[in-house]
Amino acid sequence: MYLQLAKGVKDIPPEEKILKNKIVGTLAEVFELYGFSPLETPILERYETLSAKFAAGEASDALKETFKLQDQGGRELGLRFDLTVPLARFIAMNPILKMPFKRYEMGQVFRDGPIKAGRVRQFWQCDIDTIGSTSMLAEAEILQAVARAFEKLGLDVVIKVNNRKLLSGMLAQVGMVDEEKALIALDKLDKIGKKGVTEELLQRGFAAPQIAAFFELIGNDLAGLKKKVQNAQALQGIAELEEVFSLLRGINIQFEVSLARGLVYYTGTVYEVFLKNGTFASSLAGGGRWDDMIGKFMGGNREIPAVGIAFGLEPIMEVLKSGAGKKSVAQVYIIPINTVEQSLKIAEQLRQAGVKTDFCLGKKGVSKNLEYASALRIPYVVIIGDEELKLGKVVLRDMGSGIEQVLTMNEVVKLLTQNR
Amino acid sequence: MYLQLAKGVKDIPPEEKILKNKIVGTLAEVFELYGFSPLETPILERYETLSAKFAAGEASDALKETFKLQDQGGRELGLRFDLTVPLARFIAMNPILKMPFKRYEMGQVFRDGPIKAGRVRQFWQCDIDTIGSTSMLAEAEILQAVARAFEKLGLDVVIKVNNRKLLSGMLAQVGMVDEEKALIALDKLDKIGKKGVTEELLQRGFAAPQIAAFFELIGNDLAGLKKKVQNAQALQGIAELEEVFSLLRGINIQFEVSLARGLVYYTGTVYEVFLKNGTFASSLAGGGRWDDMIGKFMGGNREIPAVGIAFGLEPIMEVLKSGAGKKSVAQVYIIPINTVEQSLKIAEQLRQAGVKTDFCLGKKGVSKNLEYASALRIPYVVIIGDEELKLGKVVLRDMGSGIEQVLTMNEVVKLLTQNR
Repeated sequence: MYLQLAKGVKDIPPEEKILKNKIVGTLAEVFELYGFSPLETPILERYETLSAKFAAGEASDALKETFKLQDQGGRELGLRFDLTVPLARFIAMNPILKMPFKRYEMGQVFRDGPIKAGRVRQFWQCDIDTIGSTSMLAEAEILQAVARAFEKLGLDVVIKVNNRKLLSGMLAQVGMVDEEKALIALDKLDKIGKKGVTEELLQRGFAAPQIAAFFELIGNDLAGLKKKVQNAQALQGIAELEEVFSLLRGINIQFEVSLARGLVYYTGTVYEVFLKNGTFASSLAGGGRWDDMIGKFMGGNREIPAVGIAFGLEPIMEVLKSGAGKKSVAQVYIIPINTVEQSLKIAEQLRQAGVKTDFCLGKKGVSKNLEYASALRIPYVVIIGDEELKLGKVVLRDMGSGIEQVLTMNEVVKLLTQNR
Repeated sequence: MYLQLAKGVKDIPPEEKILKNKIVGTLAEVFELYGFSPLETPILERYETLSAKFAAGEASDALKETFKLQDQGGRELGLRFDLTVPLARFIAMNPILKMPFKRYEMGQVFRDGPIKAGRVRQFWQCDIDTIGSTSMLAEAEILQAVARAFEKLGLDVVIKVNNRKLLSGMLAQVGMVDEEKALIALDKLDKIGKKGVTEELLQRGFAAPQIAAFFELIGNDLAGLKKKVQNAQALQGIAELEEVFSLLRGINIQFEVSLARGLVYYTGTVYEVFLKNGTFASSLAGGGRWDDMIGKFMGGNREIPAVGIAFGLEPIMEVLKSGAGKKSVAQVYIIPINTVEQSLKIAEQLRQAGVKTDFCLGKKGVSKNLEYASALRIPYVVIIGDEELKLGKVVLRDMGSGIEQVLTMNEVVKLLTQNR
């Protein structure tokens, strides 16, 4: 039993974690370029916070899948299932924060759900949110940062955009009143098709004529929709969508009327990011406007608007992963031959120059050590022997070509810092 | 209830998280300079793994303080209490890893203990470990990286070093056989003094003459100790200490015979890092050699040596924290005056040049916006009005001095990228 992972979680070995750190670094860099500052909320939250009905939503999977536990004082706790609910709790607890408050947070979230392909019980989200602005400029800024981030990651994506007000209004127009239940089903249109969604809506207690009327109404032509829609809320949703689209000319966003997003807390714009080409079906990021939750945490006396997006690190990694992962960060590996003391100084010299330097710790021979460096895909080896050292020189081996050169340390440092 | 944090955990607001990210970045940079590669293990582990008696240790606080929970399948889980036990489990599960395996990991660990000054239930550890080497060079490399890391952080520290073999041998020499219990008491010598430790040892069932003999034996003069010690294991500990000290001339390390470290899994060298001057008593980092745990995870058939150290982020932050924390990462804040569309383009231009740029999202007037930028301590504001824009210029305000200049965007970009 000692040697098993908990079900549904994974180790991230160096060859994957190096890539993951690179993605996290790229995202943080872009988030900061857009003026989002870092925040860290705890992984442990009170269960009351997570289970508030305006947070998880009673019909959603998030609450059913929350890991529950107790502390020694018998207090009911849960592991956070996203970074949005803790953010809302943080904002509500800190009423003196200057608005708009723009933050990013990156970290693990937990869902005790069924293990399917690609689904794990502990995964990373990377969120940006703007709190305290109702302006569609906030949406535009976030989607601009999203476009920039995926560009930096080298991924060609499409951003699908919709509006919850439009969906709610249309559901009201055809008389489908239990919106939360309807949206959870509708969100699956991409995966299970019109037939699947119809069946699920029937199971959830909606009447067939209403469902038919709804499918009659919807469509991906915003101008056409504007003519068929009568409900005021739906028209407001269309107006917001038009504003977002007008602010974001030149960025690849696309209206998608079936996009609902499973969580109950969205109130306006919603969006989801997909890979443009290829067969990777999961979304890479998703979010929207959630104007109500923070005010409700504060007892309903204030309204604090909010809009944001969560990047899914695991699906992004899945897409970026190539077979040739690096197994070590080191750029050079040092093998002393009876020269440990001087070699340690040379290693320090390389580190001073900013070269990531690994050092032979064992008493193995040169060939065993070369094999080790090769297995870890370290690009260079420096062999430091008595003879060469007397002449102030060392042997530099290029592990790719196998070519060895006898060089002074100044030459080695120059070569390794140039080749980065 | 919604608006309470779980007991013993904290939010890290931007003014602190910016500092925390800087520390994490510095540590990662130094770790990689020494050839340690990143690894990520899960926060959730099987309770069997965490509670193995060679991992947490039956008498230690770590096991009593482990957060326990169950998944939906009824499996017993725990939140990791350090990063060492998950590493041992990872190594044991991956027998094909090339040795030595050098990794760093940074992340949250959890202890459901009493809340005292400075103690929290969720905190960060930043670990480096070298697996698969018995050489004292591994210790030396780690302590060198430690010295370099604190130098980069601008902290003047002393590294106290001891050896478990020496302690065990001395305990055996005076007939104190229940080593784990004795070491947990001895580790508190700094805090509760000789009298306090004596009382705790008596409570734990040790006899007064043994305790007296033990205190008679110990001392911080390694050469003097060498003469009094007879036990072979203790002499081996002294030899290892001598080797480590000889490899680390020029680095501020110091022998401390009472240093035991609470966890049961240490087998040789142990060390702990303290601030040199001032009243900050908590250690900033601590670790040692733990040669037995991995082999025991593998059923005792193999021996896989290991040595490492954990940096405590919270105490390091505590020390580095100054009153003047930044509240935003942004370097410049843009205020458009009826020029939203052109200003958005200018913001993008700044971001292209690598300037962290925040943008006014509301309809507030210029003075309200200046107040906002000032409250967030953003150093520059760019005001973009119709008049200036016709001449191809904008207003740049230095928020420190209050001086405003009318400049072209090229001049603004030049100034902001120079001043970083």
